[in-house]
Amino acid sequence: MSVEKRTQSIDLSHHLSELSKARQTSPLKGIMKYFAQPGILSLAGGLPSPAYFPVSDISANVLVPESFSLSPTEPSTSLSWLWKLFGSHNATKEKTQAITIPKYPTVKEDINLATSLQYSQAVAQAHLQNFLKQFTSEVYRPAFEDWTILVDTGNTDGWSRAVMTLCNPGEGVLCEEWTYPSAVASMIPFNIKPVPVGMDALGMKSDDLENLLSQWDPVSRQMPRPHVMYIVPVGQNPSGSTMSVARKKQIYDICVKYDVIIVEDDPYYFLQLGTYISKDDRFPGATPSGKPSADESKRYLSTLTPSFLNFDYEGRVIRLDTFSKTIAPGSRLGWFTCNPVFAERLERQGETTAQAPCGFGQAVITKILTHWTYDGYIRWLRGLRTEYQQRRDFFIDCLADEFHLHEVPAVSGVWEGCIVYQASSQVKKSTGMTEKYSARNRTMFSFVPPVAGMFVWMKLHLDQHPSFVPGDEDTLETKLWTKLAENGVLFGPGWMFSANAMAEGSDNNDSGHFRISFSNGEFTDFKKAITIFGRVIREFFQEDL
Amino acid sequence: MSVEKRTQSIDLSHHLSELSKARQTSPLKGIMKYFAQPGILSLAGGLPSPAYFPVSDISANVLVPESFSLSPTEPSTSLSWLWKLFGSHNATKEKTQAITIPKYPTVKEDINLATSLQYSQAVAQAHLQNFLKQFTSEVYRPAFEDWTILVDTGNTDGWSRAVMTLCNPGEGVLCEEWTYPSAVASMIPFNIKPVPVGMDALGMKSDDLENLLSQWDPVSRQMPRPHVMYIVPVGQNPSGSTMSVARKKQIYDICVKYDVIIVEDDPYYFLQLGTYISKDDRFPGATPSGKPSADESKRYLSTLTPSFLNFDYEGRVIRLDTFSKTIAPGSRLGWFTCNPVFAERLERQGETTAQAPCGFGQAVITKILTHWTYDGYIRWLRGLRTEYQQRRDFFIDCLADEFHLHEVPAVSGVWEGCIVYQASSQVKKSTGMTEKYSARNRTMFSFVPPVAGMFVWMKLHLDQHPSFVPGDEDTLETKLWTKLAENGVLFGPGWMFSANAMAEGSDNNDSGHFRISFSNGEFTDFKKAITIFGRVIREFFQEDL
Repeated sequence: MSVEKRTQSIDLSHHLSELSKARQTSPLKGIMKYFAQPGILSLAGGLPSPAYFPVSDISANVLVPESFSLSPTEPSTSLSWLWKLFGSHNATKEKTQAITIPKYPTVKEDINLATSLQYSQAVAQAHLQNFLKQFTSEVYRPAFEDWTILVDTGNTDGWSRAVMTLCNPGEGVLCEEWTYPSAVASMIPFNIKPVPVGMDALGMKSDDLENLLSQWDPVSRQMPRPHVMYIVPVGQNPSGSTMSVARKKQIYDICVKYDVIIVEDDPYYFLQLGTYISKDDRFPGATPSGKPSADESKRYLSTLTPSFLNFDYEGRVIRLDTFSKTIAPGSRLGWFTCNPVFAERLERQGETTAQAPCGFGQAVITKILTHWTYDGYIRWLRGLRTEYQQRRDFFIDCLADEFHLHEVPAVSGVWEGCIVYQASSQVKKSTGMTEKYSARNRTMFSFVPPVAGMFVWMKLHLDQHPSFVPGDEDTLETKLWTKLAENGVLFGPGWMFSANAMAEGSDNNDSGHFRISFSNGEFTDFKKAITIFGRVIREFFQEDL
Repeated sequence: MSVEKRTQSIDLSHHLSELSKARQTSPLKGIMKYFAQPGILSLAGGLPSPAYFPVSDISANVLVPESFSLSPTEPSTSLSWLWKLFGSHNATKEKTQAITIPKYPTVKEDINLATSLQYSQAVAQAHLQNFLKQFTSEVYRPAFEDWTILVDTGNTDGWSRAVMTLCNPGEGVLCEEWTYPSAVASMIPFNIKPVPVGMDALGMKSDDLENLLSQWDPVSRQMPRPHVMYIVPVGQNPSGSTMSVARKKQIYDICVKYDVIIVEDDPYYFLQLGTYISKDDRFPGATPSGKPSADESKRYLSTLTPSFLNFDYEGRVIRLDTFSKTIAPGSRLGWFTCNPVFAERLERQGETTAQAPCGFGQAVITKILTHWTYDGYIRWLRGLRTEYQQRRDFFIDCLADEFHLHEVPAVSGVWEGCIVYQASSQVKKSTGMTEKYSARNRTMFSFVPPVAGMFVWMKLHLDQHPSFVPGDEDTLETKLWTKLAENGVLFGPGWMFSANAMAEGSDNNDSGHFRISFSNGEFTDFKKAITIFGRVIREFFQEDL
């Protein structure tokens, strides 16, 4: 059904919630347009004079775009570099350039604090708006013409506003069966329930979605057929799955057929890491050019899986982007890309909450981006990607060191079509210490190395536990999690990522999973954590008895 | 009813909305407490490494706390100073000190970007939390013991969260008959309606409030008796009125009697400007000490009217504070002070919207405040106050130059008990030009010089218009407003501040008012604007025919 040529978005205003339709333009904001008249003397707003902003200028030393290498280096090199940085808090290794934002600019149009720190409409400041438009246009290439950019304070805010703009109480939202708990927490209080759709290694299953929607019975389900989908297509949280282009197109076409709005929450888009290759088979490839360049940007972007926007010829996708993973979580800055009707309603909602995102943050981030330039920012993102690739590789290497990993193709279930790594104890050579344990060839857990994102999603084979009784999964997961925590290691407990975990009275929490993040921490700590995990899980499975 | 000794807050949880009660703790956030364990190896969260934050440090040149004089100087002096600053965009006059926030601090506990720019709970960062606690404790001295501080992204966000935390659809909120339009815009979409209470020169009238609540008939009113009040007690927006201590106590006691929660929106608290004295009677007093000091802070604070918190022995006040008027609107940073039960629910709501306020903003603002110290910040606030006093005085001087102002005591209505300035045309001496107009002694407008805030609330005597027919107020107000705008001057149109302006199908918009802000702009522009206003309004009233 997808078409190549760009079209105008279709009228989708029937998706707006009652709440959203009842929002009026803030009348004070309506006056704002007169401010633009040259020479107007405005005594209408309640704006303080910039003379009273206590900051004459803000400066920063900003990392250069090519701060991180593009080719995964030998672990040892990478480690020593990171160790220095973390261990000694010695930041002198960082190569930086200075930026400054004055209160009063010498060139009127330059980024300045007199404007950035003033009241503004609930949209991005001008330079940021321009940057985001260029970025979205070149990176995501939406298939409809009249797409609109609107800033928010990050994807949690973005999703929360999307829910209130699109959903009425009593409705349901389609989502992956394992999903981001905060996304569910934004819905439940409004009596909007998650409607889980089955997953495989590519994320949400299109046949499950089609079946669910075609066979929807509002009476037995006690809710109308869902018209909104929440989806994390890249480096999915928590499963780490990443959707193929073909799957995305299938999902999109089903959403057209059943008139569903897709909210694409995509914080890990630039953490597309490639396939994990075991340590022994890994070798450094040719180092790509390290300097920012338009050609390199284009070539790199062509390697990334396209956004839903890229074949959204109707304008039914609301894409959520954020600077949390690419600049810093404290940015509290992100943006919607969507049709202009939705954007206008989302803006109205913004006016009565945070209004615009923080001016200090907007000014500094915009100055960094425009200083780097578009190609510099793409170069920065490529460096980050390589860093996370090294982190993933090192983390899985640690698992491979600690356990016997057996690679098997999965023929069904969540990992259908993937190579699954099944972990069992390995015979540990006695080193003069008393420690030794036998290999019972019992799979204690399994996982698929993620090709994107920050997480390894570990399935615990609790049915292999010596004292396992069906129905015990919940208890055993919690027991193992607590044992680990007591031994000084925290993983993400699987139950909290179940789409139904927060639905009232829900009792179908699946169980026996951990979400493990390799995004933070020192490499030595990964090693330590996995060693502790090895000891605790073997003890738990009574492998050493 | 008020008592002096401090008590614990009483149980007011029956005020929580259904929405608020349905909120659960974000399960991901629940894990956060384990992070505090020394030496814990956490792979649970999805936190990026601070090594990937592209900022090595942020610096700023910050105005010194004593930047603004404490004694109103001669207008000419003040003007020339301001002219230079604004006119030439020459900021070199600003006396500044440098602050720096490193990513990795040399002393672990110092403010640093590695922490400030990381994910955090929806509360203030540690240094800011400490500062706000001290500030609230010393400045507002709440009458109940277990008051709690919670950050938000400014008072619009604060009020919006208070509405959703306290009100169910179909309810009403008590407010001043003229009120802040954005506050109403946050309620209307949820089917929560403003319930206007009459005002006089001291703001909301206690007898009107008592009558309204005692005679409340849920059937004829089609809503239950309101249990929430929205009030701007200092420099009220738009009326400029400021509530006395006695009135506040009356209002508070009525709220105790009828079990009403008071949401005190107080952005103008530090703009308490004193009584306007006409130019000829004004003379510079003794200059107070310009340096920050604990004694001066105490002495100054004792001159300010107390917050509702100060006699809130039950914990039924939710106070909203903001840095928008004291640092900069772009801060998008403010805080609630309220009982711990409300604070916990407000925090839950914050988790699913902006999460924490922007880390760039929190870091810079906190660094400024701690660099200045508490007494320095109080000194800064005192300087701001004097600046706004000069602005108010100059602005009203302009009106006195342009019109004949006749001072009369008001015996009834909104300004009961105040000296009202009635403005009519004055005989203009012919200066060789052709311009001249007669004094018809007709009051075109009247106002009370505000003792706090940023606004002059101007009542238009449209019934004095030659072609006035009762019921024409709306049309005439808009006509005059548009004429002014076409001549290059923007005032705030009165109709938009009516508490009912946004209620659907409302037809009781009062009319014939302008809200004029003296908070921004150059003094020369005030002069120009009032000259244009003089010409336009005389023409409008056909004074020069």
